[in-house]
Amino acid sequence: MRLVVVGGVAAGTKAASRARRVDPEAEITVYQEEPEPSISECGLPYFLSGTVSGRDNLIARTPEDFAGKGIDMLVRHRVEEIDAENKKLSVVNLNSGERFEDHYDRLVISTGARAILPPIPGVDLDGVFTLRFLTDADKIRTYVQKHSPKKAVVIGGGYIGLEVAENLHHLGMEVSLIEAAERVALAYGPEVAERVEAHLREKGVTVHAGAKVEELTGDERVRGARFGDQSLETDLVIIGAGVEPSVELAEKAGAEIGETGAIRVDRRMQTSLPGVWAAGDCVETVNLASGEPAWVPLGDTANQMGRVAGTNAVLGTESEGALEFPGVLGTGIFKVFDMGVGKTGLSEEEAERAGFETVSAGMEAASKAGYFPGSGRVFIKLICDSKTSRLLGAEAAGDGADKLIDVCATAIWGRLSCPDLVNIDLAYAPPYGPALSPVIQAATVLSGRLGRNDKGS
Amino acid sequence: MRLVVVGGVAAGTKAASRARRVDPEAEITVYQEEPEPSISECGLPYFLSGTVSGRDNLIARTPEDFAGKGIDMLVRHRVEEIDAENKKLSVVNLNSGERFEDHYDRLVISTGARAILPPIPGVDLDGVFTLRFLTDADKIRTYVQKHSPKKAVVIGGGYIGLEVAENLHHLGMEVSLIEAAERVALAYGPEVAERVEAHLREKGVTVHAGAKVEELTGDERVRGARFGDQSLETDLVIIGAGVEPSVELAEKAGAEIGETGAIRVDRRMQTSLPGVWAAGDCVETVNLASGEPAWVPLGDTANQMGRVAGTNAVLGTESEGALEFPGVLGTGIFKVFDMGVGKTGLSEEEAERAGFETVSAGMEAASKAGYFPGSGRVFIKLICDSKTSRLLGAEAAGDGADKLIDVCATAIWGRLSCPDLVNIDLAYAPPYGPALSPVIQAATVLSGRLGRNDKGS
Repeated sequence: MRLVVVGGVAAGTKAASRARRVDPEAEITVYQEEPEPSISECGLPYFLSGTVSGRDNLIARTPEDFAGKGIDMLVRHRVEEIDAENKKLSVVNLNSGERFEDHYDRLVISTGARAILPPIPGVDLDGVFTLRFLTDADKIRTYVQKHSPKKAVVIGGGYIGLEVAENLHHLGMEVSLIEAAERVALAYGPEVAERVEAHLREKGVTVHAGAKVEELTGDERVRGARFGDQSLETDLVIIGAGVEPSVELAEKAGAEIGETGAIRVDRRMQTSLPGVWAAGDCVETVNLASGEPAWVPLGDTANQMGRVAGTNAVLGTESEGALEFPGVLGTGIFKVFDMGVGKTGLSEEEAERAGFETVSAGMEAASKAGYFPGSGRVFIKLICDSKTSRLLGAEAAGDGADKLIDVCATAIWGRLSCPDLVNIDLAYAPPYGPALSPVIQAATVLSGRLGRNDKGS
Repeated sequence: MRLVVVGGVAAGTKAASRARRVDPEAEITVYQEEPEPSISECGLPYFLSGTVSGRDNLIARTPEDFAGKGIDMLVRHRVEEIDAENKKLSVVNLNSGERFEDHYDRLVISTGARAILPPIPGVDLDGVFTLRFLTDADKIRTYVQKHSPKKAVVIGGGYIGLEVAENLHHLGMEVSLIEAAERVALAYGPEVAERVEAHLREKGVTVHAGAKVEELTGDERVRGARFGDQSLETDLVIIGAGVEPSVELAEKAGAEIGETGAIRVDRRMQTSLPGVWAAGDCVETVNLASGEPAWVPLGDTANQMGRVAGTNAVLGTESEGALEFPGVLGTGIFKVFDMGVGKTGLSEEEAERAGFETVSAGMEAASKAGYFPGSGRVFIKLICDSKTSRLLGAEAAGDGADKLIDVCATAIWGRLSCPDLVNIDLAYAPPYGPALSPVIQAATVLSGRLGRNDKGS
């Protein structure tokens, strides 16, 4: 049985490795367009600044490692077409230019997502970059070494833009962050965005929110960014304007595309095409907090999806051992300087858009026992369905936000209500938190607002 | 309406404060035997070493603070008898020696727990201490200042003993920890105990496990600790041999005592006596992982119980606004040097004693993305019911153990199964964890062992 995997980053390599484990006999080939497989893309902003040193550290496994496991990892190979009816592929070797045909019995599509390049005049100037692949990071590092930029503009205040802004600042650049929407971290409520902007300013990063870049100016290299009647001098521009799923190959092959624009799959990660599974950043799933289709391209989810797709591709979706991927909560976290910023489930805005009536409570709390050295502050906000009291979402910003978000993600995963969290038995000791976790404190306030004092609020 | 609270640490002060909020008209008096109320007892080991500086930092609220809220906080007052039939109390003012009678309409008993003093010859020598109250810490600090002990013996390898050992080491003492059982941290499985012992040795603390101290020797002051044919020279002994609930007052008044030896209460924290509630370290509750009676004296739980007892005491247990305290998971965490050690639910041993057939998986994992600076190691072990696959318990030791334990506590609280955790959507970014949380990694291994590959393992 021949399994072909198209795309060799998180989902693709996981699918291949898992398939190998489940079926020691299968013939497994992975085609990867970039020169390296198995890149830890989430580490790229930290590679820019040298916080993560050593390019090799970002490559979890080399083609040789895969060969050792009996997986044929062909890098610099692009799959140009899938003939799903005849189970054939057209492939081009990007090194030699050679084109050839391959065939498969089972196929996993894990073509990922790519950075969006907004149609701004000047976007093709030297010194303007996106950051998605390791090769992008290489280009930026080379440019920085050559030109020693003093000023940098980051376009986009999502998590990539924010991480990049911090890391360019660590390189000694004067960094301006420009966000077209009225605030950064738009997936979060305004309370979090305010805190992030204040923290950026405190650290010396200039924030321009509600500012749409209309032009990048320069000669051979970028020299400025214009928005409205303002113009910033700059030596480097990094665009973090979001990503979009790479679905053209699947779509052309006849795979159904979901309403989010990503590939539609069932719970077993099978596409609408027989013998074809898909996983990772190119795939649509469901947000279990809202029940709605969701496209949340993140590395951890890609891994989990890859495991399901790889297993089912070799076992067959109808097999007893087939796995299911239930969906996501849209849980995420990023670091911006000393602040952790995380989210799970729905923001208030998202919940209301999904048709819920919400009640929420946001508060600041100590991140450890107040008297313990190093105790910081953390903001937490819980969002509940006012009808069922079910927890729909949580946001946190500050010291220890990652722990609070993981607790809330687990609570939503277990379909707990907000009053359920008032007496939850979490771990307390002074070095690790205040006597009552900020989650418990916020749940207590929120339960009061829900008028659900009956069960523990 | 007159509410009297007996005991003014965590549960008692919370009950009083909550009662005040719920009923602005009630007359509220708290009797507290120690000279200060509202002590953060969990911070005491850190106060010994000066890690937490400033005695006042450990006093969350003074009697004046309570007075400002309309709560009469009478410190150095011991309640000697409760006449439950006539709702009367005999009280002694420990400063003046004066005895008087008080009465109540509603009573909350929060008499806490006290350190066990094992019947070892020499235990009454100068230089031998337990550490439960702030006044104990005062005595130890005075002794240390006066005698500058070079060598210390800590008896007991539970969390208090371990925290004390670390903090005495920080004071420059040569510390020996003596534990009668075959390993320290006996509430945990042997894998955690091994790691804790290795970490203690690495830091320079000598560990004697399976060693029962038979005699403390000395002249006016303690000079040695003898176990078997070994004898250790020492200038200071701190006994961390566990605590026992202070129930005599309640028992004498006729309150039912549960099988754990602590006061029996219902879900509304009412004792068997009409008009009498109880909360905190003197109370028996239920372990929700096993369904069995449990006595888990911890500050966070005491707080939560106090809130329920205080509310119900003023509203009345039959009131619509009455609260319930569902039980605990026995979740706990402590720090020993650079290692966090936490637990929730049942250890393998405890689960088997409770009648479960268990399957478990323990593993070491990176605590952040492996390439990220400061990434450490953490051990995690999950314990499942082999019949239902339900998560029964988790243990963790190492970097970030507190987060993993809180995730598992929430999972048990939500009655999640181990396979449910394989695809859980937790927050990932390189500074905060590996791409797949150690919880997910362990759940994946364990689900494989459960033979439950059908739903996501």
